[in-house]
Amino acid sequence: MPDPDFKLQAQVERLHARYCHALDEDRLEEWPGFFTENGRYRIATAENEARGLTLPVLYAESRAMLRDRVASLRHANIYEPQRYRHMLSAVLLEEQTPASVKSIANFLVVRIMENGETTLFASGRYVDRISIPEMRYEERVVICDSRRFDTLLAIPL
Amino acid sequence: MPDPDFKLQAQVERLHARYCHALDEDRLEEWPGFFTENGRYRIATAENEARGLTLPVLYAESRAMLRDRVASLRHANIYEPQRYRHMLSAVLLEEQTPASVKSIANFLVVRIMENGETTLFASGRYVDRISIPEMRYEERVVICDSRRFDTLLAIPL
Amino acid sequence: MPDPDFKLQAQVERLHARYCHALDEDRLEEWPGFFTENGRYRIATAENEARGLTLPVLYAESRAMLRDRVASLRHANIYEPQRYRHMLSAVLLEEQTPASVKSIANFLVVRIMENGETTLFASGRYVDRISIPEMRYEERVVICDSRRFDTLLAIPL
Repeated sequence: MPDPDFKLQAQVERLHARYCHALDEDRLEEWPGFFTENGRYRIATAENEARGLTLPVLYAESRAMLRDRVASLRHANIYEPQRYRHMLSAVLLEEQTPASVKSIANFLVVRIMENGETTLFASGRYVDRISIPEMRYEERVVICDSRRFDTLLAIPL
Repeated sequence: MPDPDFKLQAQVERLHARYCHALDEDRLEEWPGFFTENGRYRIATAENEARGLTLPVLYAESRAMLRDRVASLRHANIYEPQRYRHMLSAVLLEEQTPASVKSIANFLVVRIMENGETTLFASGRYVDRISIPEMRYEERVVICDSRRFDTLLAIPL
Repeated sequence: MPDPDFKLQAQVERLHARYCHALDEDRLEEWPGFFTENGRYRIATAENEARGLTLPVLYAESRAMLRDRVASLRHANIYEPQRYRHMLSAVLLEEQTPASVKSIANFLVVRIMENGETTLFASGRYVDRISIPEMRYEERVVICDSRRFDTLLAIPL
């Protein structure tokens, strides 16, 4: 195991932290800006990933597509008011190149409904490819542990 | 986004970690020492914060008030034996000055009753102003996601 | 409070992160390799630890014993398919010597059954003694908050 790059580790953790807070504070319009222009975003289940199935729950392959998604979420606005709280842990850097680095991290998201009810909403792994020194997601794959899904999935993970 | 100050980030995370462990190990008497002499501590709900309401669930504006709170908790001691476990994530530094820094962090607290039952107790954000180089809380605002509250709130968050 | 050793802190957090991901991705065969040759591993309850009882839920005192445990888990394989997700927080270094360092960290583990059901499985503290510069566990004590235990405890914590 080579010594980790402490500076890069801190920069990656800062990117992840900014992402979490933007979503949890409902600043959805900032969400596409965390990705590169052709950044890919995909939500999958661990079961499908293990089987090599490529049917994602959600898929986008550019910042423009992410902006569309935000717009439709804002426009529809049919979902029940709710909050998310993202918890992130065990950020592990791998496969560093001069232009990018891979990051794996565990996550847990709790959902708080308007009546105050709090539930475990999702758990899983973020598997990311991050551009250097830009520090944006070239690819963010959200691999959820459970196959049970809120089909609305109103707010991004 | 300027490059984060790695040393300060590590110092802030260490302060938060010491705070969590002191509470989780029931070393309540150490709690006031994490604050400056005139340190403010406030528990609020996200709903009230968003509406600009200043009615906190709990409020203290000095180390002396925090000591009083600990004393009354120890004296009353009427609550059912329980444990807390604090999880902290996504520590993000902002607004650094020579004398202080702002820190935002997500938290999740689980409560373990004496019979072993474990529940999600609270989730939310810590919004802190931390003195430098003293590394104590000048202000710690605990913004809970849920409006549902255990009115006793026997142990500090 | 002396200034923390930032490099060592990052190395310890990397070790913990690699451990979490190995277990969560079911790479159990890598588990013994996180320990020194005579590394000790013990799961206890907070209640028993507080009373000074030394009856652990699970105990091993060498890499060989950990390998046996993995082999029997793989051989038996009677447990229902399930996933774990480890969340780690508040990693605090103490008692550094030239050859080792103590680490305390909070953890939360959620379990995801095959039908998708997600539950809080365990919470507690890791209390570790880690060899330097080898970065392996000389001792890992898993102190669970709850006395309620899944007696199978199929996957290591």
